[in-house]
Amino acid sequence: MAILVQKYGGSSVADADCIQRVAERIAETAQAGHQVVGVVSAMGDTTDDLIAMARQVSADPSDRELDLLLSTGEVISCTLMAMALRTLGRSAVALTGPQAGIRTDAAFRQAQIVEINPERMLRELERGTIPIVAGFQGMTDDMDVTTLGRGGSDTTAVAVAVALKAEYCEINTDVEGVYTADPRLVPDACKLDVIRSDEMLELARHGARVMHPRAVELGDVYGMPVVVRSSFSTEPGTLISRGDDMALEARQRVRGIAHDVDVGRVTIAAVPDRPGIAYAVFDALAQAAINVDIIVQDVDREKESNLSFTVGRDDLEKAVAVVRPVAAEVGAQDVHASADLAKISIVGSGLSLGPGYAARMFGALAEADVNITSITTSEIRITCLIPESDVPRAARSLHAAFDLDEESLTGVAS
Amino acid sequence: MAILVQKYGGSSVADADCIQRVAERIAETAQAGHQVVGVVSAMGDTTDDLIAMARQVSADPSDRELDLLLSTGEVISCTLMAMALRTLGRSAVALTGPQAGIRTDAAFRQAQIVEINPERMLRELERGTIPIVAGFQGMTDDMDVTTLGRGGSDTTAVAVAVALKAEYCEINTDVEGVYTADPRLVPDACKLDVIRSDEMLELARHGARVMHPRAVELGDVYGMPVVVRSSFSTEPGTLISRGDDMALEARQRVRGIAHDVDVGRVTIAAVPDRPGIAYAVFDALAQAAINVDIIVQDVDREKESNLSFTVGRDDLEKAVAVVRPVAAEVGAQDVHASADLAKISIVGSGLSLGPGYAARMFGALAEADVNITSITTSEIRITCLIPESDVPRAARSLHAAFDLDEESLTGVAS
Repeated sequence: MAILVQKYGGSSVADADCIQRVAERIAETAQAGHQVVGVVSAMGDTTDDLIAMARQVSADPSDRELDLLLSTGEVISCTLMAMALRTLGRSAVALTGPQAGIRTDAAFRQAQIVEINPERMLRELERGTIPIVAGFQGMTDDMDVTTLGRGGSDTTAVAVAVALKAEYCEINTDVEGVYTADPRLVPDACKLDVIRSDEMLELARHGARVMHPRAVELGDVYGMPVVVRSSFSTEPGTLISRGDDMALEARQRVRGIAHDVDVGRVTIAAVPDRPGIAYAVFDALAQAAINVDIIVQDVDREKESNLSFTVGRDDLEKAVAVVRPVAAEVGAQDVHASADLAKISIVGSGLSLGPGYAARMFGALAEADVNITSITTSEIRITCLIPESDVPRAARSLHAAFDLDEESLTGVAS
Repeated sequence: MAILVQKYGGSSVADADCIQRVAERIAETAQAGHQVVGVVSAMGDTTDDLIAMARQVSADPSDRELDLLLSTGEVISCTLMAMALRTLGRSAVALTGPQAGIRTDAAFRQAQIVEINPERMLRELERGTIPIVAGFQGMTDDMDVTTLGRGGSDTTAVAVAVALKAEYCEINTDVEGVYTADPRLVPDACKLDVIRSDEMLELARHGARVMHPRAVELGDVYGMPVVVRSSFSTEPGTLISRGDDMALEARQRVRGIAHDVDVGRVTIAAVPDRPGIAYAVFDALAQAAINVDIIVQDVDREKESNLSFTVGRDDLEKAVAVVRPVAAEVGAQDVHASADLAKISIVGSGLSLGPGYAARMFGALAEADVNITSITTSEIRITCLIPESDVPRAARSLHAAFDLDEESLTGVAS
């Protein structure tokens, strides 16, 4: 019997009614002949509520204790889900991350899974019991409870699927699947039936919120097929897989548009043109654990240049504080920050093979009167930094320029 | 440096302010030169709230999942307490029952502690860190989380104190200590400075709510001194200890009065006088896991008798249902239940040495016009079953008859 891992997010288990509906879905999947493992997030706003409690007793709660505190959110939801399944007459058992054998490093708040010992989950499955695993958490060798940070429950689900050699992993969420663009911005956006995991990774990294890039990457690395679908409908959703068998022809096109408004830009103006300056700046940022996204350096005067980079908006203030003394030390003129830019990206496996894509993108943006501040590319992605206020217009113009509204008509080779 | 275990109950950690006040007490105790280990209950009504959540998804939630769910209550309070201590500049670490090395059997909802491996707690103490342990919980050999049932957090505290070879264990609660009687009923009731653990055990078993008999017994068995005191004052409270050095003279007196209104009585009327009938009745009750307290059998007719026993009121209906078919089978006339009785007890180590105590008790009750339904005794206790409505009057008359209001004047040998 094939093992199937089903993950349900916080909005899918927000209250008792939601939990009962999800329990019915899990029971139906088991009834249909699968060995199901459930992975659940904390109910609705539980995590925020727990953080608020911590802040009441401590302005700066310790990471270790915060992790242990937050872990209770998923423990609560997994026990309630197991109870709801038993009420439906199914044998079910709630497992915390530690009980499910999820071993992590000791980097509290953003632990990485080191290993999963699936022995308990397999034992429960063998006796016909449905394990419901608390997402987002694991245990160190010293029995300390950790949380996995952003995208934690998705990551738990994919990692559990890999450890159990599952047939595939289902991410049940509040959208129908992966779309060619954000349907809130682009009314013509179409749901994709299938997408390559490397394409999905680029979309997720550059703003598509449907699944965390970390979990996408894990599925990609281990070749675990992932299906993103809605918790609230029976539609099949979107299959994310390595897709080694996809014809090259089918790959030569834009598959989707991602946008990300969580962009803060720091510009160091008039940096002297000397070796070692970029190192000084980005080493300081790395020491402060600030993730840098797009870096652009352009020489605008003799022996001087502007150095710009983007970070998440939450990190913007901190990044400026880190960079300012470094800039002063190397003799730069000024450091300034802006929080009014956004990224818009086109993603598709064939982009690097067809030189016309970049031109078509820039042309569409120009026609829509969108000014481009910076451009970065990867093998399968082109990203432009544009004014945040232009994002909806840019997304619609790109969607039309790359014929993405025809997606559902043309179908996708898989 | 002496180890001291401090337990704080649910009302002492009901909200962020309470937690901060308790953290200050713990910090002060550490400052005063103790190696402190904290044990905390769940905040205020958390446990009730969690049970209500379970009932929303299941009319009869499974014990294993309910235990895992309930365990989150103490995990939340211990993490918040550790955070509050760190805010005060103390090194502190929150430990779940499993992390504190508390191993139990697999009797969910009422697990017994099998063993405590104090390695982690000792390691934290050695490095100057205050461990804050989640009360009421432990872990089976299969990594399942259990709860210890009634009196669980008190039991955790005493057991941890025993495992750590602590100097003593402090139970911080919402009363000032152990009183000669319930001060709500007997305005003259006095706080005891010291009480023998066997006397405390009888008081606790027969209605004194200040500490659960299970935890008292554990302290008695292992000779661990326990101090009951208020979380909200600096008064010294009551020392409960084996007291082997107490003079016999000092023991020859009544130490306190306990009352318990959680009494339901089942009477099987006109039971034929044949061997094996009591066995049939009480075996059936044991099978149904109903705890029986007082048993009275009195022959009122030739070859027939009435058989009565008391149970907790929650069990009364179930007990009648269990007993009715047995009664019919053995040819008894009728089974009836009453929930209007209560127990009142006098406790003191010397009672069995002085024959006058029983007579004085019955005399005082008669003078107060209290009718006695049944009487039971132990070496150090006499209990009367009386109408519930007479309890306050009975308590006051006994308190006066045994000169308990002079307690604070005469002092206590210790």
